[in-house]
Amino acid sequence: MATKASIFRTIAHSRKTCRRFQPGRIIPQATLQDILQSTIRSPSSFNLQPSQIILVQSQPVKDDLSEHAMIGIGNQYRTRQASAVAVFLSDLEPSKRINKVYQLEKEHRHPNYRATMPLATSFLIGEGHAATLIKGIATQFLSAVQPMPDVEPVLSWSYKNTSLLAQSFVYAAESHDLATAMMEGFDPRRVKEILRIPDRYAVPLVVATGYEYEEESETEPTPRLNISEVVFEDTFGREWKHSNDESASS
Amino acid sequence: MATKASIFRTIAHSRKTCRRFQPGRIIPQATLQDILQSTIRSPSSFNLQPSQIILVQSQPVKDDLSEHAMIGIGNQYRTRQASAVAVFLSDLEPSKRINKVYQLEKEHRHPNYRATMPLATSFLIGEGHAATLIKGIATQFLSAVQPMPDVEPVLSWSYKNTSLLAQSFVYAAESHDLATAMMEGFDPRRVKEILRIPDRYAVPLVVATGYEYEEESETEPTPRLNISEVVFEDTFGREWKHSNDESASS
Repeated sequence: MATKASIFRTIAHSRKTCRRFQPGRIIPQATLQDILQSTIRSPSSFNLQPSQIILVQSQPVKDDLSEHAMIGIGNQYRTRQASAVAVFLSDLEPSKRINKVYQLEKEHRHPNYRATMPLATSFLIGEGHAATLIKGIATQFLSAVQPMPDVEPVLSWSYKNTSLLAQSFVYAAESHDLATAMMEGFDPRRVKEILRIPDRYAVPLVVATGYEYEEESETEPTPRLNISEVVFEDTFGREWKHSNDESASS
Repeated sequence: MATKASIFRTIAHSRKTCRRFQPGRIIPQATLQDILQSTIRSPSSFNLQPSQIILVQSQPVKDDLSEHAMIGIGNQYRTRQASAVAVFLSDLEPSKRINKVYQLEKEHRHPNYRATMPLATSFLIGEGHAATLIKGIATQFLSAVQPMPDVEPVLSWSYKNTSLLAQSFVYAAESHDLATAMMEGFDPRRVKEILRIPDRYAVPLVVATGYEYEEESETEPTPRLNISEVVFEDTFGREWKHSNDESASS
């Protein structure tokens, strides 16, 4: 117990954005396999798993991304020199997954859950602007009477699920002493063109993964807001009574 | 090294959605403190940290949320019986954070980074519909000539960042043998009213946290798609050559 907690603490506190990777190194396949197996265990709404990952290891494809799609010299270098570039995709038509997940879940779930899943997912996801608008009005009206789910835009809903996966990937990589850099500085249209990604998907994040260049390994972690500024107790704005001043320096 | 990897693997594979918590138990403050310290180390765009957490431990507030804001009997029970309910907030006006983070970063970053941060953030975030529209047109036009970032709706951008934090929270809790349930089935308007959350924030996720009811602890993890369905190699649709059939059963 103590071991698990202290080791996760080490992973969480030592993870940082890698500024420079050692070029030309290959991540062992067993390591990648282990990272991906942990990654796909991340939770998702209704277990719909609306995310895919493209793992770019081929140098010409990395060079192509670096030269034509990445923004900023730092991201261009990282993309070229990282051992693997994990491109995270968010499905914008997640209702197309319902049947597949339903089959997968058949053995696992209570019949009541399975009976309500298609209904619940079609209500919550709200693909399509007209449907969203109509449901939005109904929801706002009914919310005064009974609790109603919000109609989230599918992009936000899908990003949310994919980010859970991306954070899992980063911790799994860190647990193998690999360095990572989550990047948002890229042109998604160009990423989609180079990697032949269908329109159905958005690209919220790209994670460069590899071995940190040794001279960089001494950089300090970036600062964070104090825990008292981030965490409230019971209601908004009320300071968490057990917070202290250690967070800024730890 | 092997220890870190194997322990993270254990955490990732044993995490599951808790169906029932032991009521009336309190999480030690040192444990919560450790979980939150790891949570706030999560990465965010430009280190803007556009998220807050409200940790609800008071039983009357949990009951209020359960009765008036949660959807579905399962979520209602979990909210009432969990030791702590972590409500994650996404800032929809993240540019208001730039000055604060800029001060925090002053000592840490290269002057070039600091000089471009306000410009980069104001360009990437795009708060406000008019600004988003104008930037969207400029971006689409320029993307043909040079790589340009996408103008993401602020809701999606902020959800993405907050989800990274929520996933960290869940792993940190799991590392202390706490059970968690990520929930989306709630009425955000009512959550905001009960917890006095300003309009500036959206509520993407609520995570019930506590001790699993013992009879439930033998439930199997829910199934996942096979790794070959989730991970592609180099370009979309190309099977990752090292994938195998183990993921569905692991």
